[in-house]
Amino acid sequence: MIKVGIAAYGITPFTKDDQKIESVLLKSTKKLFENNPKINRNGIDAVLVSTNNNSKYLAPILSEMTGIQPKIAHSIESLCNSGTNSIVSAYSYIASSLADVVLINGAERYDSPGQILEWDNSRGEFKHPIFWASIFTKSYKREFSISDEQLSLVSVKNHKQAKENPNALSNKTFTIQDVMNSKKLTDDLRLLDCSRPCTGSASILLASEEMVKKITDEPIWITGIGQKTISAGFTKNTSFSSMESTKIARYAALKMANQNIQDIDVAEVHDAFSVCEPMALESLGFSESGNGTNMIKELYETNDFKINPRGGLIGSGHPLGATGIAQTIEITQQLQSNANSRQVDNANVGLVHNMSAAATSSTVLVLEK
Amino acid sequence: MIKVGIAAYGITPFTKDDQKIESVLLKSTKKLFENNPKINRNGIDAVLVSTNNNSKYLAPILSEMTGIQPKIAHSIESLCNSGTNSIVSAYSYIASSLADVVLINGAERYDSPGQILEWDNSRGEFKHPIFWASIFTKSYKREFSISDEQLSLVSVKNHKQAKENPNALSNKTFTIQDVMNSKKLTDDLRLLDCSRPCTGSASILLASEEMVKKITDEPIWITGIGQKTISAGFTKNTSFSSMESTKIARYAALKMANQNIQDIDVAEVHDAFSVCEPMALESLGFSESGNGTNMIKELYETNDFKINPRGGLIGSGHPLGATGIAQTIEITQQLQSNANSRQVDNANVGLVHNMSAAATSSTVLVLEK
Repeated sequence: MIKVGIAAYGITPFTKDDQKIESVLLKSTKKLFENNPKINRNGIDAVLVSTNNNSKYLAPILSEMTGIQPKIAHSIESLCNSGTNSIVSAYSYIASSLADVVLINGAERYDSPGQILEWDNSRGEFKHPIFWASIFTKSYKREFSISDEQLSLVSVKNHKQAKENPNALSNKTFTIQDVMNSKKLTDDLRLLDCSRPCTGSASILLASEEMVKKITDEPIWITGIGQKTISAGFTKNTSFSSMESTKIARYAALKMANQNIQDIDVAEVHDAFSVCEPMALESLGFSESGNGTNMIKELYETNDFKINPRGGLIGSGHPLGATGIAQTIEITQQLQSNANSRQVDNANVGLVHNMSAAATSSTVLVLEK
Repeated sequence: MIKVGIAAYGITPFTKDDQKIESVLLKSTKKLFENNPKINRNGIDAVLVSTNNNSKYLAPILSEMTGIQPKIAHSIESLCNSGTNSIVSAYSYIASSLADVVLINGAERYDSPGQILEWDNSRGEFKHPIFWASIFTKSYKREFSISDEQLSLVSVKNHKQAKENPNALSNKTFTIQDVMNSKKLTDDLRLLDCSRPCTGSASILLASEEMVKKITDEPIWITGIGQKTISAGFTKNTSFSSMESTKIARYAALKMANQNIQDIDVAEVHDAFSVCEPMALESLGFSESGNGTNMIKELYETNDFKINPRGGLIGSGHPLGATGIAQTIEITQQLQSNANSRQVDNANVGLVHNMSAAATSSTVLVLEK
């Protein structure tokens, strides 16, 4: 099997800027090329764009803007985990020998149409994700006797960590009382429990073992991939207090990488809302069921950035199509010991968890030095 | 290398129906399952949706509607060649061992937003494809001294062939005079020179050699793949009277299949407009430069369905995301000797040519028994 590695990356600050999607796309790819002058643009075989934007033909457009004439060029969409779907697709193009080098670019505007899933009538009149997030929160709190204070700590921790991330949307820290007193959206959700849509892009260059070594001395390998789609409709989930698609994806990814969850030194998990972080930690096996908030408390109190070092979606912002790529870049930087004040000690094996639409689908990636 | 074969297909009539995209999607997949009762839905590892529709999360939606819980599920868009991009992506998932069985569904509504490429300012005030088609036509006619009559025969031939295709949008035949007298859209284009957007869907199931044989006794193998993106902007094309991306894609596809163009017994070529068929025949190497219309005349006069047996895009209609899949189904039926009154003699090796946006990008596939 051909090994697939991360050869380069580029990322922009996440903002509320009102820019054309093509401009947003271009920025992180320009950064990627600036950071890695050894890349030969003629050797890029595929360009994949991860986005929920309605503009068409964005992969050929990005190719033209950056002087690439790839073989393969198309957009990929799967709501909030479009980014990791694109990474897995790029992996398969390389592992199947259809491509040696693939550029992946995730980009989104703050007003992304991917925030609402009109089709899902099971959400009732509330099409916005705060509907399922409220039910998740109510269900999780009830099942495991978790308090609002305990969940608020997710937002406190991730905003604190985002302060060390120069690309994060948020630059503020908050107390548990700030989170609890922030605008009440539903019985169970406050404004500061929510990740915010934003404008931003993130680019990764994947390459075969042979090609990756021509670009970087510090390649990071994708050693585990797990994906699962349970449904599209929220109420088809068999549980509202755990992520079933995440459990299946994690099992497959760890098996492929031949690793245990105890071996993971640093992880990005999909905290679209506060409750998602403990649920994800439990479904990934980092913590026993109902114990995720205790793990979060311990990490917070010991200033351990192991989970969501860049501040998660809550602290960094959530530009849908860029999120999975940005998560993967963070783990790459951690494994390369390039994460500055966010750096986790002894980071050798990392994990990315990216999910869509109330965890009806999930991707889990394992990355290694 | 793992061999990848076509295990099953399903297709709907192409119409002007005003149906929700989810209903359109479902129809061809239902047909696929009805036609192939041996398929185990639990064994479908990936669901890919090819479309320009703005609705999100369509792959998980199709999965839920059909009782599939795949690992991989996402949409793919590249304007008019979204369909073959999806087929190539599915091929790579199987060839890389990330999946054994992949369902691909191309679907579009008649009012697809993929018909206009707003970004391409090089098209001037004319955003519609008839702009580039007019320049192609003017340029081709001038360079090779081709008459309007000669080009009109493309539409005459393809409408005649579409009459044998029960799923075609058109059920009428026309004379050269009918085409020449049809509504004049520009100096060089008449209404009957144009393929028409429509509503329809087409589904294909790809599988590894081991799995394909469990589903069908007549697998068709994908033996050659070539793709190339030159640009996104029309005027970046180096020629307006040939398809440069097609030439490169054809070279790669034939090389991978270890075939010559003379070995191709039947082909689907992307006749978005009349001029595209002779240009494609020349760029694919079926004919010398400037000689494509002579080949078309000979095929027409001998009632030989070798090129675009289902009636091409002009006769069948052009539901963007479904077109590349429908083309591939036609070649599959031809190679299986299942094409009824459209059947070409001794069809052992077939070719699919699918392109986007004035041939700024092209896909060429070689299929074999």
